Amino acid sequence: MDAIKSPYWGFVKDPIYGYIRLTEVEKNIIDTLAVQRLRRIRQLAGAEYVYPAANHTRFEHVLGAMYLAGVVAENLPVDLSSEEKQKIRLAALLHDVGHAPFSHLFEPMLLRFLHRNHEDMSSWIIADSSLTDVIRAQGYDPKELSNLAVGKQATADKRFFGQIISSSFDVDKMDFVVRDSYHTGAGYGSVDVFRLIYTMDILDGNLAVDITALPTLESLILARLESFRAIYFHRACRAVQMMLLRALDFAKDDLEILRINNPDQYLEWDDYSVWSKLIQHPQSREILRDLSQRRLLKCAYEKTFFVKDDQVSNVFTTENVRTELEEEIARKAKVPADEIRIDVPSLPSVPYHNALRIGPIDIPIFSKTRSGAKIPQKITELSKVVDVLQVFMNILRVYTREDYREQVGDAATEVLGESPLSNVLSY
Amino acid sequence: MDAIKSPYWGFVKDPIYGYIRLTEVEKNIIDTLAVQRLRRIRQLAGAEYVYPAANHTRFEHVLGAMYLAGVVAENLPVDLSSEEKQKIRLAALLHDVGHAPFSHLFEPMLLRFLHRNHEDMSSWIIADSSLTDVIRAQGYDPKELSNLAVGKQATADKRFFGQIISSSFDVDKMDFVVRDSYHTGAGYGSVDVFRLIYTMDILDGNLAVDITALPTLESLILARLESFRAIYFHRACRAVQMMLLRALDFAKDDLEILRINNPDQYLEWDDYSVWSKLIQHPQSREILRDLSQRRLLKCAYEKTFFVKDDQVSNVFTTENVRTELEEEIARKAKVPADEIRIDVPSLPSVPYHNALRIGPIDIPIFSKTRSGAKIPQKITELSKVVDVLQVFMNILRVYTREDYREQVGDAATEVLGESPLSNVLSY
Amino acid sequence: MDAIKSPYWGFVKDPIYGYIRLTEVEKNIIDTLAVQRLRRIRQLAGAEYVYPAANHTRFEHVLGAMYLAGVVAENLPVDLSSEEKQKIRLAALLHDVGHAPFSHLFEPMLLRFLHRNHEDMSSWIIADSSLTDVIRAQGYDPKELSNLAVGKQATADKRFFGQIISSSFDVDKMDFVVRDSYHTGAGYGSVDVFRLIYTMDILDGNLAVDITALPTLESLILARLESFRAIYFHRACRAVQMMLLRALDFAKDDLEILRINNPDQYLEWDDYSVWSKLIQHPQSREILRDLSQRRLLKCAYEKTFFVKDDQVSNVFTTENVRTELEEEIARKAKVPADEIRIDVPSLPSVPYHNALRIGPIDIPIFSKTRSGAKIPQKITELSKVVDVLQVFMNILRVYTREDYREQVGDAATEVLGESPLSNVLSY
Amino acid sequence: MDAIKSPYWGFVKDPIYGYIRLTEVEKNIIDTLAVQRLRRIRQLAGAEYVYPAANHTRFEHVLGAMYLAGVVAENLPVDLSSEEKQKIRLAALLHDVGHAPFSHLFEPMLLRFLHRNHEDMSSWIIADSSLTDVIRAQGYDPKELSNLAVGKQATADKRFFGQIISSSFDVDKMDFVVRDSYHTGAGYGSVDVFRLIYTMDILDGNLAVDITALPTLESLILARLESFRAIYFHRACRAVQMMLLRALDFAKDDLEILRINNPDQYLEWDDYSVWSKLIQHPQSREILRDLSQRRLLKCAYEKTFFVKDDQVSNVFTTENVRTELEEEIARKAKVPADEIRIDVPSLPSVPYHNALRIGPIDIPIFSKTRSGAKIPQKITELSKVVDVLQVFMNILRVYTREDYREQVGDAATEVLGESPLSNVLSY
Repeated sequence: MDAIKSPYWGFVKDPIYGYIRLTEVEKNIIDTLAVQRLRRIRQLAGAEYVYPAANHTRFEHVLGAMYLAGVVAENLPVDLSSEEKQKIRLAALLHDVGHAPFSHLFEPMLLRFLHRNHEDMSSWIIADSSLTDVIRAQGYDPKELSNLAVGKQATADKRFFGQIISSSFDVDKMDFVVRDSYHTGAGYGSVDVFRLIYTMDILDGNLAVDITALPTLESLILARLESFRAIYFHRACRAVQMMLLRALDFAKDDLEILRINNPDQYLEWDDYSVWSKLIQHPQSREILRDLSQRRLLKCAYEKTFFVKDDQVSNVFTTENVRTELEEEIARKAKVPADEIRIDVPSLPSVPYHNALRIGPIDIPIFSKTRSGAKIPQKITELSKVVDVLQVFMNILRVYTREDYREQVGDAATEVLGESPLSNVLSY
Repeated sequence: MDAIKSPYWGFVKDPIYGYIRLTEVEKNIIDTLAVQRLRRIRQLAGAEYVYPAANHTRFEHVLGAMYLAGVVAENLPVDLSSEEKQKIRLAALLHDVGHAPFSHLFEPMLLRFLHRNHEDMSSWIIADSSLTDVIRAQGYDPKELSNLAVGKQATADKRFFGQIISSSFDVDKMDFVVRDSYHTGAGYGSVDVFRLIYTMDILDGNLAVDITALPTLESLILARLESFRAIYFHRACRAVQMMLLRALDFAKDDLEILRINNPDQYLEWDDYSVWSKLIQHPQSREILRDLSQRRLLKCAYEKTFFVKDDQVSNVFTTENVRTELEEEIARKAKVPADEIRIDVPSLPSVPYHNALRIGPIDIPIFSKTRSGAKIPQKITELSKVVDVLQVFMNILRVYTREDYREQVGDAATEVLGESPLSNVLSY
Repeated sequence: MDAIKSPYWGFVKDPIYGYIRLTEVEKNIIDTLAVQRLRRIRQLAGAEYVYPAANHTRFEHVLGAMYLAGVVAENLPVDLSSEEKQKIRLAALLHDVGHAPFSHLFEPMLLRFLHRNHEDMSSWIIADSSLTDVIRAQGYDPKELSNLAVGKQATADKRFFGQIISSSFDVDKMDFVVRDSYHTGAGYGSVDVFRLIYTMDILDGNLAVDITALPTLESLILARLESFRAIYFHRACRAVQMMLLRALDFAKDDLEILRINNPDQYLEWDDYSVWSKLIQHPQSREILRDLSQRRLLKCAYEKTFFVKDDQVSNVFTTENVRTELEEEIARKAKVPADEIRIDVPSLPSVPYHNALRIGPIDIPIFSKTRSGAKIPQKITELSKVVDVLQVFMNILRVYTREDYREQVGDAATEVLGESPLSNVLSY
Repeated sequence: MDAIKSPYWGFVKDPIYGYIRLTEVEKNIIDTLAVQRLRRIRQLAGAEYVYPAANHTRFEHVLGAMYLAGVVAENLPVDLSSEEKQKIRLAALLHDVGHAPFSHLFEPMLLRFLHRNHEDMSSWIIADSSLTDVIRAQGYDPKELSNLAVGKQATADKRFFGQIISSSFDVDKMDFVVRDSYHTGAGYGSVDVFRLIYTMDILDGNLAVDITALPTLESLILARLESFRAIYFHRACRAVQMMLLRALDFAKDDLEILRINNPDQYLEWDDYSVWSKLIQHPQSREILRDLSQRRLLKCAYEKTFFVKDDQVSNVFTTENVRTELEEEIARKAKVPADEIRIDVPSLPSVPYHNALRIGPIDIPIFSKTRSGAKIPQKITELSKVVDVLQVFMNILRVYTREDYREQVGDAATEVLGESPLSNVLSY
């Protein structure tokens, strides 16, 4: 009964999971510019205009994802070494370092100017920045973590390593569903993520879920859908996002982040610096002023539809088509064309990103026979709820300035067909 | 600024809604044997064997239902008098006074011996017991409350009065979804019931929901489905319920509650007195002993299926068919026939009890035009989730003693077809 | 990476701590009459008349205490064997098996008739009942657990084993402070028990707390004080308890539990069977009828005072003195003497039960030097809050029937001195 | 039963109180630069380095304070007009518009350069900025709100108006105790603020509390004390604050906010713009870089003491004395003097800001006689807990760079006396 040394360096308190233990390796990687910067990148840019308390950042989210990844690794019925578990936790910790200011909102700019999405940026930063040296100094391989953090895993028998970080029931999604609900108060469902985790197993090298947790899986999928409707695709959130996007577009020639040469330059930029840039920029300043007084674009027309084929959604997501429709509505409404914005956010309801490696749009699920054998099952055959959520939800909206709302609403109805528009409940 | 007299008598603290105000009328009706007896009738008989903390009773549930009924009445965009609001609250308070010991578990006995369900009992008690005098003394009409408490409302333009108490989105369901989750910890979904309530309106005299709350309605419906799977139809809960039912059947000739002449005799019986009776009764004693040591029936075979037509479920819910199958399984398993129990709990997923008055299996939902007009909508057309949940979930299980489990499992598979059986997660 | 066998048998879901893992040993001991009986013994008899949802039982409490004991054992910076940790968990699980029906309420009857308190009963049951055989069959020593479950530990260097189970910051108190708050909704403080646990260490063989957790310790102590005021000593709770005590006294000659010869006979009795007995008993029936309609004794006079010496409290806790005062008040109020009840519940605010072994009224606390040495500190010197709470809180109340309230209040004021009496907030 | 128009404009969802209703007046005042700017001023600058999720802002806090102010106004047993209630809500909404970037952290700079504290700034902004016109346009008197928002109320009989906004149990404190706990997860106590509110009354024109809520009042006071220790005065939080303060001091000549001529110029500045300024400023840049990698000052020495007189605290809060001690420690430790920082945060535990108007350090409390008369009581006589918390808690700390920690610790011990220093629990 001698005193023993804890393998942990200390604790950090999270309002959701309580005390999260940190190893010294983790502490040293957390205390880098790459990870600390996430403190100034909000998780849900725009959502705070609807849910005032939704000011949580990517920083606490990655700590939460790391924690959940550790719980998964500890509970999977396979022998993992301490080092393997540490790698999985680190990959979860680092999976979001590549996010741009305002998170997903900036994604189109990333693609357009840097030809990378945020996952590519995460990989790049892990493999080739000031963070890289710290990772190496802690005894871990930056290249390996750079892949693992975006769900890539070299050896087939350990595909589940990557799937813990990136799949349709990964620690990223589990954490944000719970965390976004906690901070918004949106209350679309407190998913029992630990039930899901405790029933996870490996099936042919893939992360899989026991059929007994199917209800929880359905809850997770529905909660994600609800969170899109209640938060990410909320009319006012989208209005803010469109305004910010236009401001970014106006200022694009003066935004150094769009012309970086290496990851360390990218890491200079966060919500604070971009917001400060935009508010001083002659072209974008006015939009920021409007945001600063919550003078938002207003939704004059809205229609929601679900399609299984991509045809309808393609029509609206094609820029040319959208522009033509905007102009037609503007003509009929007798307002300037640049006062009309058609918005078509859409979501694949069960977006299993690693579909190619796993199989077409399906989550590995199994049942156990009385002898303990794991029998693969088709989730869409077992769950009508999952099956029906396998669709794309499309929302088509026409936004304009508050004082044009009426005439644009009429014009949009004429062009796009009758659609009822109820008052929003939330602010 | 003179001191004013509060119309409320006082507060009672609820862990879910916080302080619930009571009027003096309510206080006087709560402090009757009929309502106080609900303290000794547990909400979820059997569930405590799976969720140890699920010891909540009908008493706090009816207080919660009364509270929610008040919130609905206060927020509906119609003028209701204080007296009307008080009636609605009282009806919610009294809607469950008719429950038998062990709540729903006892329902088949009620029907068989007293030819009444628990709602009939509620009406009877309100209209013709010691409670009746108290209601009358408080200035309310027992007959009217007796109807309203089970969702019946005489005048067509106030159909929504009854629907607040009894419909597919009534205060009863809203309260128990939230409360059962709180006390079990099952965590299948924290439904934002206040969002639902704040968007309620009246459509042609019926209680209706604004289309903007559709996601919340879907959450409520899914949460109910999950609660059935996670709690009410849980293997071990059902095992307890079957054991209690058999114990009741054994002792039926000596159970005075099955031979009552008036409601006041009925009110003598609660969980405490029935349990004490059963544990002393020579026939049922042994089953209670088993329960007292958590020696439960074991599930040897399980199959879940969803059917839209009633054919399949009828097969299994017909007693003769079940008995024949039990005997066949017993023969093949070489065990006594009375050691085999086929259990087929089933649920109509969206059980709109007042279907006849409202329309076929549909929840009134509307969208508002920009001019404020309410346009009725078909929920099943708008929500694929609701549409798909419009089915019956059937679970077919074969239970037996622990030591017969293996051979009965084999025999059942032979008779009923292959079906995988995973290990349960929960205790 | 072969599949490994979990050392755990399964999970049980608790609304407070989430999933609690059980070993097979624990499962087998839980599934005994001795432990399962706690399902029918409520944690806070009488409190449900003030907090309607306070229907939790000793059963979920002992599961919670076992869970916390495991967390303590896992986190103490000493090497404990798996078997030692299992013993500590089992002791916590079994610490309350000796509770009588209605828990503490019954304690005076236990002492008077069986000459044992509930801890003595726990020891007796563990060492000499049907439970004993199960413990032995699982490979554990009933005698050792029988001591450990009440905080006794033979070897000096492992005194902390017992202190985990029974001391002023033991797992029993930590669990009930949190659990009572959860189920009552009383909200007197959500103590961060995990912070306390994570800073625990051993000081000279005793369980001790790092000075950095002093604020949490103060919270725990204050929360206990608040819980006494808000729940255990609440006017209406005490009224219920006095009524039940009188009913028990009336029926004492027919209560078999007061004349048991062995623990197994004791285990026949629970809240259900005693309540059913009392409601049928000719002497106690009327009191139970009053309770069943919430016709409670009313408090006509109340005075709270804090004393450091025992003199004042002794005056009131002496039965003769109380009886004389009751008679005098009755005379002056012109009501029958047996309609007056003086109640003097009192609490030692920091009741360190193992004071003799540890030192006078003090919780072991230490600070660490920069070199890691643990320096013992005096908590009462460090914390003015703890120091001031080191007192006895005495409440003196006079109860009577509702219709005598006024005259008894006047008479009590005459006899006992002026004391203001505010209206209660809660029901 | 015609459709009635809600006096409310809509809802906003708060994770703590649920749906908060807004009137149109409130909506229009919220949607101003002065209030919207609070979205970019964090409630607890520095705390996020210890509690990663503590990213909440003044914006949601003022909504919460407004909500609670409304609940107080609705529940006080006096007749208030709709307009009076609206004024009270607006005052709570606006009480913090004067906060500088990083909230309290900036306060010394405000005093030094603008000779105003944040309350003075609130008054100034309300009375003389772009906000003023909006207030006037909504029909309210800016001057009156400007006073009320900082607790000043002209007429003696309505002193409680101001006390709802600013006193030792005001809606500001009630909201932040609950909200800081929610977002940090610090869990020092979930104070039942509604119990406090429901027992409030008016005593001689002052806001007062019924003695029955004394336990809740003690909880609130203790929770505030704990929150100071756990959050505001936490070693690492203070380290961040000292670093930011020094950075501000370095950049002070280039900070336009320190040279503003009118409130509208002040409103240009928030956390975003000041942080962006500091990170680009040649003198302060390095400190910000350290913060960006969480390279914090380290505490080498710490001593906590409580004094009732101000003598001891004055010694340390006198700048000259501090500087001399810093230099002496530096000499002994052989490190540059500017690497030593003595920090002495202190708090008056029960800071009743309106002491002069109410009476010496006391919260108005009363008990009710049976006839309903309110008898004033002395809280410090009734509550030993409040009495003992009536002190100043002083913490004396010596900070330095991580690599000087050891030698500075030794030197400080020599100069300031022995003091144990335990390891921190939290990150």
